[in-house]
Amino acid sequence: MAGFSVVTLQRLIEQFERLPGIGHKSAQRLAFHVLNMKKEDAEAFSKIILEAHEKIKKCSCCCNLAEEELCPICKSSKRDSSVVCVVEDPRDVMAFERTHEFEGTYHVLHGVISPMNGIGPEDITIKELLARMGDGKIQEVIMATNPTVEGEATAMYISRLLKPMGVSVSRLAYGVPVGADLEYADEVTLTRALEGRRMI
Amino acid sequence: MAGFSVVTLQRLIEQFERLPGIGHKSAQRLAFHVLNMKKEDAEAFSKIILEAHEKIKKCSCCCNLAEEELCPICKSSKRDSSVVCVVEDPRDVMAFERTHEFEGTYHVLHGVISPMNGIGPEDITIKELLARMGDGKIQEVIMATNPTVEGEATAMYISRLLKPMGVSVSRLAYGVPVGADLEYADEVTLTRALEGRRMI
Repeated sequence: MAGFSVVTLQRLIEQFERLPGIGHKSAQRLAFHVLNMKKEDAEAFSKIILEAHEKIKKCSCCCNLAEEELCPICKSSKRDSSVVCVVEDPRDVMAFERTHEFEGTYHVLHGVISPMNGIGPEDITIKELLARMGDGKIQEVIMATNPTVEGEATAMYISRLLKPMGVSVSRLAYGVPVGADLEYADEVTLTRALEGRRMI
Repeated sequence: MAGFSVVTLQRLIEQFERLPGIGHKSAQRLAFHVLNMKKEDAEAFSKIILEAHEKIKKCSCCCNLAEEELCPICKSSKRDSSVVCVVEDPRDVMAFERTHEFEGTYHVLHGVISPMNGIGPEDITIKELLARMGDGKIQEVIMATNPTVEGEATAMYISRLLKPMGVSVSRLAYGVPVGADLEYADEVTLTRALEGRRMI
């Protein structure tokens, strides 16, 4: 930028621009906000970025994020370890936990099979899931990958591997989301909702 | 969050949530992005936040951001130091610099007078501006505060202080923005555009 070259500021702006969903204007706003922070706050922000990187690893059982060998869910004696809910992402675990309804455990794939993006079965944590099946304690696996083409294909792929092991495999129900307006529901969702109708 | 308490992750999310315009969902997305960064990138990000805080100060002349005693604009011999454009914010300097049309210098107020928010004339850099008038070299001051009630009031306040010093004080032109659709222009802007009409 001609005449106005505070290099450090430009570099700070660039760092924010690299974040997903942050354009140049937002990056500028964020950078100026950081500049105007109190020194302690900037230090805390800077530190937590490094700390998160150093401390957070994958749970050795479910591959969810964890600060110890096992994540709090796998470690808990209150969770039913015979039921495993397979999700794509740690954020999906958070979403299920917010329902306070699921008492089983999880398995985080960290992605979906996506030949278009060069992601094969060996690139996500399917191997680790199969290893968990070893001791025969797991009785039900709920495939909770996203309702997208890739999520669907990944669910199918995994279920074909699991079924011969004598474990029951289920898939999340499709249907109209609660609170939504039917008028705006897409055809595929409506068709699935019809197919999946239940007696009342 | 019940059952899912990776404390470091929560703290990282909270740090992002404090940034302006970042809600909980975005903060989550950004935190996960940072977690998935390469270690070097996370280190660079963490470092630049601290560095920006340490290195960037105010230019001792115009109060714009600077890494040295004087900002590049005040230091440059190519800029006309007899003309000073008074702006609210360092971002406004960036905006003017992008036009490549202004060859004078700036003065950054770092805010506007805003009694509602408890910001008085002594809280912005008016004192520093008056100090610059001391040697009589400044001949024109362009008030380029934002076209808002507070920006306007601040421009008026400062111009009343400057005029007795024999300096000519001007204000940015009001009018319809170039490329805009008149249909959507507000009444005040249209009125100002009419008032400020020029012969062609």
